Amino acid sequence: MKMKLELPRGMRDFCPEEKILRDEIVGRLKSVFERFGYNPIETPVIERQSVLASKFAGGAEILKEMFTLKDQGRRDLGLRYDLTVPFARFVGMNPTLKMPFKRYQIEKVYRDGPIKSGRYREFIQCDVDVVGCKGMTAEAELLQLTLMAFNELGLDVKVEVNNRKLLNEILETAGVPKAKQMDSILIVDKLKKIGSKEVRKELSGLGLQNKAVGALLGFLEIAGTNTEKTRTLKECLGEKEGLNEVEELFRLIDSRKIVFNPSLARGLSYYTGTVFEVFVRGSSITSSFAGGGRYDSMIPELLGSKQDYPAVGISFGLEPITEELKLKRSIMKTKTQVYIIPIQTQKECFAIAEQLRRKGINADMDIVSRGISKNLNFVNTMGIPYAAIIGLKELEKNKVNLRDMRSGKEELLSVEQIVKKFEH
Amino acid sequence: MKMKLELPRGMRDFCPEEKILRDEIVGRLKSVFERFGYNPIETPVIERQSVLASKFAGGAEILKEMFTLKDQGRRDLGLRYDLTVPFARFVGMNPTLKMPFKRYQIEKVYRDGPIKSGRYREFIQCDVDVVGCKGMTAEAELLQLTLMAFNELGLDVKVEVNNRKLLNEILETAGVPKAKQMDSILIVDKLKKIGSKEVRKELSGLGLQNKAVGALLGFLEIAGTNTEKTRTLKECLGEKEGLNEVEELFRLIDSRKIVFNPSLARGLSYYTGTVFEVFVRGSSITSSFAGGGRYDSMIPELLGSKQDYPAVGISFGLEPITEELKLKRSIMKTKTQVYIIPIQTQKECFAIAEQLRRKGINADMDIVSRGISKNLNFVNTMGIPYAAIIGLKELEKNKVNLRDMRSGKEELLSVEQIVKKFEH
Repeated sequence: MKMKLELPRGMRDFCPEEKILRDEIVGRLKSVFERFGYNPIETPVIERQSVLASKFAGGAEILKEMFTLKDQGRRDLGLRYDLTVPFARFVGMNPTLKMPFKRYQIEKVYRDGPIKSGRYREFIQCDVDVVGCKGMTAEAELLQLTLMAFNELGLDVKVEVNNRKLLNEILETAGVPKAKQMDSILIVDKLKKIGSKEVRKELSGLGLQNKAVGALLGFLEIAGTNTEKTRTLKECLGEKEGLNEVEELFRLIDSRKIVFNPSLARGLSYYTGTVFEVFVRGSSITSSFAGGGRYDSMIPELLGSKQDYPAVGISFGLEPITEELKLKRSIMKTKTQVYIIPIQTQKECFAIAEQLRRKGINADMDIVSRGISKNLNFVNTMGIPYAAIIGLKELEKNKVNLRDMRSGKEELLSVEQIVKKFEH
Repeated sequence: MKMKLELPRGMRDFCPEEKILRDEIVGRLKSVFERFGYNPIETPVIERQSVLASKFAGGAEILKEMFTLKDQGRRDLGLRYDLTVPFARFVGMNPTLKMPFKRYQIEKVYRDGPIKSGRYREFIQCDVDVVGCKGMTAEAELLQLTLMAFNELGLDVKVEVNNRKLLNEILETAGVPKAKQMDSILIVDKLKKIGSKEVRKELSGLGLQNKAVGALLGFLEIAGTNTEKTRTLKECLGEKEGLNEVEELFRLIDSRKIVFNPSLARGLSYYTGTVFEVFVRGSSITSSFAGGGRYDSMIPELLGSKQDYPAVGISFGLEPITEELKLKRSIMKTKTQVYIIPIQTQKECFAIAEQLRRKGINADMDIVSRGISKNLNFVNTMGIPYAAIIGLKELEKNKVNLRDMRSGKEELLSVEQIVKKFEH
């Protein structure tokens, strides 16, 4: 039976040139996460359906997109659709964890949903969460981490910050009736996308009075620096918990990249306090590159526990980051630094290659005895920066003929000299 | 609905202390693979069942252990049980790949099999393969890579090498009838495990004549160095293809760690030439730590292609490597190098932490305002080597009180001095 050369819908292969870039991004993220004291954990792709379908987990919509399967014991299993539910389960199963527990997790998740551009059925989530810290220090730390991560990725970002409690306080003060607050949040969340006029129309359509709509938009569209905005809101709202949290957060972390946006809600999610979303300035990708917030009630509700599990998390979008970096830099097809071309010196070249590799140099070598021009062609096509041509003449001199593929310049160097050259 | 705190059978969580070690092993393997010119690819966990069930793929036994599922379009899908079948599909779907194509892949695979000690339903395979090279140079390169990988992991190994063609040549010369060669291979493959006497008994039980059994074991149990063994075999067998390949391989790579074992077969697998298996000397884990070989017919058969796809591959066992290293070294609970303890200096400590992190230091910090003794306790329990205590006095002097947790010694240092200290 011949293999049908097809991938399942929504699944992707990554060839080296894409995988190298993705690995580099993941490596940089890991390095930043670890510098902030977050440690890695790993959980399985397959979870029990009862875990994934817990009431407070993802909601009905996400469950429709869950891949389900059974094992030989006919147990009901599913592929995880996010890393937050498994994290809650992990916390519940490890009651001796030292709090605050700070973990990151970079793994694949699965959603059997419709396939649009940029949406896949298998994708990687890069999640950083801290559980066991009530104060704004957790948010401050994660925002600092976010800024450093994007800085090291070479992406200039704007981080929009808000607070769900504050949003409720604003709705309250503006006189939006309780029954209409949920729907109003979903509408004002679109302010940036559809504009003030459209939001006004939708709020009126919801049955809000003109006065309430006016007051609400007045609060949400206040101008000024972060401090000016909180000061203005304080004058209007008075002493409020959500507003105090925002003030405290800006007291702890101060950067021109962080912008207070009172209309940000991040949808109908489980967030209970701070929310934030990261956008790349000047990018053609207008969706967010990372986002997160505080979710103090989710873990206790999932675990049915009376214990407090205050938590804050952020998820980095590997897909938009990869797409953006692909546009900004030249693609590496290989990580090979030098390609060794033996001319009747194969056995000796194995030894030379080993010396280079022992010194940490990525050295590939012709193992199919191609001619020299075919080999140089290969080196060129693969974008390998150097070729090392080694014939009997070079062997006699204990040297290697190192060719800079960009300039075409050749140098006769010893292995030690090559190692030195690559150290720079 | 409260979440039931259970993992599916055969699935595991990895807490930081285990995940850190596993990540380190994977990182070292990746580094070695890349030094040998192998580049990473990624393929999805979910494949079409028709791909996974292709005739030459894994055989009926492995298909019984395949997790199956359907997407919303009712397509038949499965979770991959190895990385070789997806690699063959990848090669088939990318006809413009430059040959030889050298790739590595470190990813999760799934088998819904019985759970014994050390066997799981989700595990990671670390595969390195080269396709498009007929000669022994491919094997020589992969054996060199194997030795360097285990050397850098700090494990002293013995690599047993044989050749399936040679094994057939030996059976032929010993007078084993064609119809009984397959079964004989399975029996002699157990030589190391069950010993010479038992193998003799099983071969006789198979109906082999005493003369054939004697000749066969005579060939398989020859003593001496690798060169002495090949020389002796040459005298008995004459000029044979498999034997020539073994000779050529030992001409290219020469190490006291590589041992020619003429009875090694690696089961009833798809191997067509060289086979090898890696064992750790002095380990209580007697199973192999890595293994592989040449499989020249598998990819063309899978693809139903007339084109040649000669291939050699090796798979590293992350599980035995992890278990062995756990016994050999102290476990790291965190990657954090220094833990900052603010005493009424939280905001300033955020800035100090940022300076350290910018310099690449893994600096964690108390964000829940614990007392100093609770903090030092935490630092101790987590095995973090340094604590940085920062009160108003230290701030005034622009210094940090750095405590070496092992010796208890404290030093008043500037941030720059700490950075210097950690560079060593």
